[in-house]
Amino acid sequence: MRFHTRKWVKPEDLNPNGTLFGGRLLEWIDEEAALYSIIQLENQKTVTKYMSEIDFQSSAKQGDIVEIGIEVLKFGTASLTLKCEVRNKMTRKPIIKVDKIVMVSLDEEGKAKPHGKTKVEFVKDRLADDER
Amino acid sequence: MRFHTRKWVKPEDLNPNGTLFGGRLLEWIDEEAALYSIIQLENQKTVTKYMSEIDFQSSAKQGDIVEIGIEVLKFGTASLTLKCEVRNKMTRKPIIKVDKIVMVSLDEEGKAKPHGKTKVEFVKDRLADDER
Amino acid sequence: MRFHTRKWVKPEDLNPNGTLFGGRLLEWIDEEAALYSIIQLENQKTVTKYMSEIDFQSSAKQGDIVEIGIEVLKFGTASLTLKCEVRNKMTRKPIIKVDKIVMVSLDEEGKAKPHGKTKVEFVKDRLADDER
Amino acid sequence: MRFHTRKWVKPEDLNPNGTLFGGRLLEWIDEEAALYSIIQLENQKTVTKYMSEIDFQSSAKQGDIVEIGIEVLKFGTASLTLKCEVRNKMTRKPIIKVDKIVMVSLDEEGKAKPHGKTKVEFVKDRLADDER
Amino acid sequence: MRFHTRKWVKPEDLNPNGTLFGGRLLEWIDEEAALYSIIQLENQKTVTKYMSEIDFQSSAKQGDIVEIGIEVLKFGTASLTLKCEVRNKMTRKPIIKVDKIVMVSLDEEGKAKPHGKTKVEFVKDRLADDER
Amino acid sequence: MRFHTRKWVKPEDLNPNGTLFGGRLLEWIDEEAALYSIIQLENQKTVTKYMSEIDFQSSAKQGDIVEIGIEVLKFGTASLTLKCEVRNKMTRKPIIKVDKIVMVSLDEEGKAKPHGKTKVEFVKDRLADDER
Repeated sequence: MRFHTRKWVKPEDLNPNGTLFGGRLLEWIDEEAALYSIIQLENQKTVTKYMSEIDFQSSAKQGDIVEIGIEVLKFGTASLTLKCEVRNKMTRKPIIKVDKIVMVSLDEEGKAKPHGKTKVEFVKDRLADDER
Repeated sequence: MRFHTRKWVKPEDLNPNGTLFGGRLLEWIDEEAALYSIIQLENQKTVTKYMSEIDFQSSAKQGDIVEIGIEVLKFGTASLTLKCEVRNKMTRKPIIKVDKIVMVSLDEEGKAKPHGKTKVEFVKDRLADDER
Repeated sequence: MRFHTRKWVKPEDLNPNGTLFGGRLLEWIDEEAALYSIIQLENQKTVTKYMSEIDFQSSAKQGDIVEIGIEVLKFGTASLTLKCEVRNKMTRKPIIKVDKIVMVSLDEEGKAKPHGKTKVEFVKDRLADDER
Repeated sequence: MRFHTRKWVKPEDLNPNGTLFGGRLLEWIDEEAALYSIIQLENQKTVTKYMSEIDFQSSAKQGDIVEIGIEVLKFGTASLTLKCEVRNKMTRKPIIKVDKIVMVSLDEEGKAKPHGKTKVEFVKDRLADDER
Repeated sequence: MRFHTRKWVKPEDLNPNGTLFGGRLLEWIDEEAALYSIIQLENQKTVTKYMSEIDFQSSAKQGDIVEIGIEVLKFGTASLTLKCEVRNKMTRKPIIKVDKIVMVSLDEEGKAKPHGKTKVEFVKDRLADDER
Repeated sequence: MRFHTRKWVKPEDLNPNGTLFGGRLLEWIDEEAALYSIIQLENQKTVTKYMSEIDFQSSAKQGDIVEIGIEVLKFGTASLTLKCEVRNKMTRKPIIKVDKIVMVSLDEEGKAKPHGKTKVEFVKDRLADDER
């Protein structure tokens, strides 16, 4: 699993108990899954279709730094299945895990659209290909 | 299932495709589950522990009004299990469903704390009791 | 008066004195009045035209749950006059009252447009009518 | 009336009809009234107690610049009564007017506290006095 | 230098150390520079091109009121060069200074567009001219 | 330079011209510099002291994915000097560059505090050390 995006837990991210608001965490996961899929599928019109069960393992507090990891489980015809984990950057203690997130690539009318991708690609390789 | 809270889908709630951002929807669900549990368990320190799989059935667009429904499935010793559905207020078309959300009541040290509740209560009845 | 929408007072809703920011409260009231009117008048282009005097009766603090109530006072030709009250969900203590909010239904050019409504309708009845 | 604070109407400030969200406007007014009162009364614990009727005269659209004006009507013992107007900076067309906003100075326990002020003061004069 | 816009430092503006988040301060400065330039150049399509070095001189804390000052350094053909300072409203203690901000006026295609302005104008004079 | 954090440009991040709001970009940079420094210096009380000139090279539009890169230039006694670049994730086109950002480690009283660090460390190595 690769961890890219990092967040700094600020007062605006807290619930009234003073710990990281679960809804904010879910918002961060959904955004990361979406942008990761857009990069892989090269289609901006990619949406969340399904999330498997979510286990809130521990919380985070103001000032903590968390990082969000994504791993590809499967490339479908029009879908991409991901796994996601958020953990504390400094201690690596897991905060939340989502075993399966299904993202779907859509066409202009909002219907599933085959993306033609079968494996993880890196932007630098794509750009190198463009230059050949 | 009772539907209380309503949201008006504004530009700040959209993803870059111009439909309701999934992360925002999850944030709304988590907040509703939390406040519903706090009302029932009469303990402000109530947190989300688990969400079952989430099916994104349809989306919403700018200007739509959505309503969030909660139903109690089970009162545990320190937990409360809920079901949640978000639907379009005008057409009743379902947008998202979460079959099971487990909320846990905590004590000051953050440990599970029995809440002593066994059934749904209404605030008006509690207040009437206070007046007797 | 019917109370639907509920809000959980989070750190992002506080003024620097640590109580609920009055501006946030007014924002919540305006949104609730707008969405209630859109549901009744079945016109998304419905705007706030007037609010009568506002009495800030008590405040709310972090972690409180507030609920927003709306009551219809009068259906005009192109307008809808509402009454609004926000109270603490647990204690029913009133927080703020607005005796009169006038909402106006507009056409595409932004001019007042008769809405043809004369009484409160429920979405479930409208949908039942559709099925007949 | 003196106009100080200016706001640039951004996408996050719009209602679903694409015009400035009334709730945002009320939030801006309340913040301006609060900070103006804090400056005058030299007490950070100053809260909104009352707003007279509000007339939404015209709207603003994305990209517009609006300015918020405040005028003092009266210094009470523990209160300060203001008048507020928001207008389009470029055309001076009025957007919203609130004839009377009553702010109250509080002590640590949240009770009204005499502020001892009787007229508008300018910070530069206060600082000059300090230097004498 | 003229100081117009004022901000009230609220919990949502703080970094996890409880002082004003530097990123929020930069956001406020950029917005003020943009709206000031739009007023002067009478072109809504005016963007930030360059900021000189930024010195964070002191911080602000929750409840502080800050004011943002702008001064014009130079009118270029398609650009406007500004100086900006943010200070504590009550003590006049400087918080941050940006010696040079270059704003550029663009045409519909996003290319630099001469604005024809050579000196600071006041809206009231423009409107008076319109009435002659 | 290592690029970690990614952002998806949403409607709430746009200026009224429909491109990425410069102020939001500065906010993202400041947050990334802060959290990167906190990770390196192992002190949550680390603040932005200085930013060198900022060149806005190109903009981004709704739906774009941007990534933020940080490189360490120098470890001082109580400071850490960074370089930052934001670029379009898909095209690698640079959006903004800041050649020098000085972060300072503070003690409880807010005074500069030597951090004892002299080179970039990776969290995984620190944790491995802990286990030895």
